[in-house]
Amino acid sequence: MSEILKEVLLANSSYSEAFGEKGKLALPPARRFAILTCMDARLDPAKFAGLREGDAHVIRNAGGRASQDAIRSLVISYKLLGTKEWFVVHHTDCGMELFNSQIIAGLLEKSLETATVTEAGWVDIGQGPGSKAGREIDWLEFKDARAAVVDDVRTIRQHPLVPKRIPIYGYIYNVTTGQLEEVPEATKIGSA
Amino acid sequence: MSEILKEVLLANSSYSEAFGEKGKLALPPARRFAILTCMDARLDPAKFAGLREGDAHVIRNAGGRASQDAIRSLVISYKLLGTKEWFVVHHTDCGMELFNSQIIAGLLEKSLETATVTEAGWVDIGQGPGSKAGREIDWLEFKDARAAVVDDVRTIRQHPLVPKRIPIYGYIYNVTTGQLEEVPEATKIGSA
Repeated sequence: MSEILKEVLLANSSYSEAFGEKGKLALPPARRFAILTCMDARLDPAKFAGLREGDAHVIRNAGGRASQDAIRSLVISYKLLGTKEWFVVHHTDCGMELFNSQIIAGLLEKSLETATVTEAGWVDIGQGPGSKAGREIDWLEFKDARAAVVDDVRTIRQHPLVPKRIPIYGYIYNVTTGQLEEVPEATKIGSA
Repeated sequence: MSEILKEVLLANSSYSEAFGEKGKLALPPARRFAILTCMDARLDPAKFAGLREGDAHVIRNAGGRASQDAIRSLVISYKLLGTKEWFVVHHTDCGMELFNSQIIAGLLEKSLETATVTEAGWVDIGQGPGSKAGREIDWLEFKDARAAVVDDVRTIRQHPLVPKRIPIYGYIYNVTTGQLEEVPEATKIGSA
C-alpha cells in the first residue's frame, strides 16, 4: 500500500469517526446552487465559498471549463436536483495558460512520462513509446482566464437545455489572496 | 444580489482574511495525486480524504464518471503537473441511480423546470417549452455504483494516454458513515 493511500485512509478514518448528523443529509443540495471550477490543488471550493457538506454541487475539471460533461452535470443538477443559481470560477496562475493543444499532443506523442516546464518551454525527457491519441482531444486551454470565464458563462447560457431563469455568476479566484473577484461581463451575460 | 451570492462572498471574505502562507503554494499538487469523484453536495473530498490546499487535484462531475472530459483532466494532471496515483470515488445513494438517459431526455423535452421524484417515478409539472437536445447526450447514469467504479477504473486504465505506472484505486464513499470502502475488483484492474 502506497504512503498516499495509507494517509488518505487514515484521514478518512478520523473524518468518519466524528461524522455525526452528517449521515442524515438529503441528496438534493440544501442551498440549491452549484459551482463549476478548476481541479487545481490550491482551490478548496468548500472553504473559499463557505460550503458545509450537503450545501451545493461542485463540478471540477482542468480549467473549470464548460465542457459537454460539465453541462451534463449542470443539467442534472437543476433538472433532477433543484439547483437555482450557478457559479463559474476560474483562477489566477492556472495551468491551462501554460500550454496549448498542439504542445500537449506533441509531448504525449513523445512519451507518457511527466514533462517539465522551463523558461524555454516544455521539455520531455521521458522514454517512449508515446501515443498520438492526444491529437484527437480538444484540451480546452486558454490564454486569458477572465476571457475564458466569459466564454464559459456564454456557452452555458446559450445551451438549449439551460433555462434562462438560472443566473450564472462569473468569478476569478485569486490564488495569492484567496479572494473571489467578479468578472462583470460574464455575470452580465449569465443574468440575461 | 441574491442571498446565496451574498453568503458566498461573505464566506469568501472571511476565508481570504486569514489566508496567510496559502498564497505562496506552488501550482503542481504537492502530494502528487488526483481524485475523481461525484459532484454530490454531501461529499467534501478535502475532508473525506484529508486534503489541505495545494495537496491534490480534484475532478468532479455527475457520478464521478470517467468521461472524456475527466480523462482530459487526468492526463493534464500527470503529464504537465506530475500526479502519480489516482482515486476513483463513487458513493452510496447516488442520484445517477435514480434515472436513465431516456427518462431525463423525456423530462427535458417536457419542460426546463425541475422535476420531482415520487414513488411512481419522476413527475414534471413544469410548463414547456422543453428541448429535444437531451436526446443527444449520454447521461452516464448507472444502476450499481460498485460496478460503475469498476467500469470507470477500466476505462481510465485502458486509455492510450494513461501510463501503466499510475495506480488507480477504486472506492465507494458511504454517505451515511463518511467511510471510504474499497472496491477490490476496481483497484485490481487499476493496478494492472
